[in-house]
Amino acid sequence: MKYYAGVDLGGTNTKIGICDAEGKIVSSSSIKTDSIRGVDDTLFRIWTEIQRQVLEQKIEKEDLQGIGIGIPGPVKNQSIVGFFANFPWEKNINLQEKMEKISGVTTKLDNDVNVIAQGEAIFGAARGHRSSITVALGTGIGGGIFIDGKLISGMTGAGGEVGHMKLVPDGKLCGCGQKGCFEAYASATGMIREALSRLYVNKQNALYDKFQGNYENLEAKDIFEAAAAGDIFSQEIVDYEAEYLAMGIGNLLNIINPEVIVLGGGIALAKEQILVPIQTKISKYALEITLENLEIKTGVLGNEAGILGAAALFIVS
Amino acid sequence: MKYYAGVDLGGTNTKIGICDAEGKIVSSSSIKTDSIRGVDDTLFRIWTEIQRQVLEQKIEKEDLQGIGIGIPGPVKNQSIVGFFANFPWEKNINLQEKMEKISGVTTKLDNDVNVIAQGEAIFGAARGHRSSITVALGTGIGGGIFIDGKLISGMTGAGGEVGHMKLVPDGKLCGCGQKGCFEAYASATGMIREALSRLYVNKQNALYDKFQGNYENLEAKDIFEAAAAGDIFSQEIVDYEAEYLAMGIGNLLNIINPEVIVLGGGIALAKEQILVPIQTKISKYALEITLENLEIKTGVLGNEAGILGAAALFIVS
Repeated sequence: MKYYAGVDLGGTNTKIGICDAEGKIVSSSSIKTDSIRGVDDTLFRIWTEIQRQVLEQKIEKEDLQGIGIGIPGPVKNQSIVGFFANFPWEKNINLQEKMEKISGVTTKLDNDVNVIAQGEAIFGAARGHRSSITVALGTGIGGGIFIDGKLISGMTGAGGEVGHMKLVPDGKLCGCGQKGCFEAYASATGMIREALSRLYVNKQNALYDKFQGNYENLEAKDIFEAAAAGDIFSQEIVDYEAEYLAMGIGNLLNIINPEVIVLGGGIALAKEQILVPIQTKISKYALEITLENLEIKTGVLGNEAGILGAAALFIVS
Repeated sequence: MKYYAGVDLGGTNTKIGICDAEGKIVSSSSIKTDSIRGVDDTLFRIWTEIQRQVLEQKIEKEDLQGIGIGIPGPVKNQSIVGFFANFPWEKNINLQEKMEKISGVTTKLDNDVNVIAQGEAIFGAARGHRSSITVALGTGIGGGIFIDGKLISGMTGAGGEVGHMKLVPDGKLCGCGQKGCFEAYASATGMIREALSRLYVNKQNALYDKFQGNYENLEAKDIFEAAAAGDIFSQEIVDYEAEYLAMGIGNLLNIINPEVIVLGGGIALAKEQILVPIQTKISKYALEITLENLEIKTGVLGNEAGILGAAALFIVS
């Protein structure tokens, strides 16, 4: 039996798991990343934890066929990390080389959202399909494009950075400093920004009633919940969200023409409540031919997507 | 020596050539497509013309290794044509099978703009690069995405239809019936539409002086010429064109992160006059990391792109 280690390297914690070739996680745990201790120290501790799990699961050493790592930053050629978002580590580290030296096990890495896309393509919602795009709708919008068994990682590791596609000339300011980005409109943050802007001039709605003008803890799910309960004001924000999602996804369909679109992240937890309006609006943006046999669905891997996706870097579909 | 036939199937004429593995065209000609006579008749006449050239060039029959065909329509799996734009032929014809039956020679086909992208990637402006996107700026905007030796043709053959990416919510009406498409702004047609709209209210400019209000023959090149001669009104239209090109290309960079962007079609004939303003404006739209080592250049294959690109479907880079 062949096994693969999947590592989800995070700013605070790093999830580490072992899974088999069918995508079954046989073991998993979490350690502190403590990136302040340096890249070698962190990799060494990850490898120690992998070894501990391998031993515990009574897996033969030679059956551990690879270590996959999801990285919060751009990755070139599944080996070199352009930069680590929020880590005090240097630029352009060849993390593949370092980990292979430490572990003696073949290592592959990719951007964390690309890794989730790989997981959904190999083990998840797009399993069995030749092409899929996974769009992660959270604080920002990330994406991963999977075609014929491979991720489009790009020349400098920025392949799939769909959140910074511009949808409006000189539009809303984005966290990246540019304007009009998909993520400025359709991320969970974008949805909250739009709600706050509207709440500034409207107090006759369920969100005002709930928060009484103190919106610090307002989340996208509050808006979906209020809309589901019949609040028109909130439903209009959901429609706004769906409109820009349809526009952004429509663009991806026209450019890539994949078999499946997988939505992940917080917004995707709304399931049919967001999928149905996207389906209604998409024909305004996507060419008809791209909608033939297209599936738009929500991801299925959930919290395990990072571990499974990293391990899936070794599975050829 | 190995040879390949390249066929550029057009609405009126079909260009047919033979080229070697280095991209040298050793022979070429043009026949009437006469699609009204039916698909088999047209394919048979194309094969007859290929045979004539092979004979004339004293090429051994077995040295003709493949027939590549560029198609004005979407092509699935380099074999099935979704539909032919402006041809009275049925939908979903397996043209590969038909041509192989008639000729006994391995046949591949792809969309005509994808074929040009393949030609520029293998023999042209993006030669030697792992990834490139060719954007053809003519009456409309077409595109072809080439990554690691392969075109992204898409599930239903619409891969690379970048002209219908939306840049403006509810924007200018496009020929496709949707609104806000890249091609409604940045194709040669888009540039002329913008000029006509501005000319309606401004008669103090070089274009008015030249055409005296009769703009039927106004072309993009007239605008570029007047701008080059110092006409501010025309320069502002060039800037408008470059702005939307930068936005559309920026989106492609953020999504695909290729090594090279190749511009073809009528607008690309303006060379530096359009490349320089795009270079200036692109950093407003593309993530900085996608611009590292990026090359934006104009295509080099010109009129031969169709034949060379179709033949190039057989060349693995």
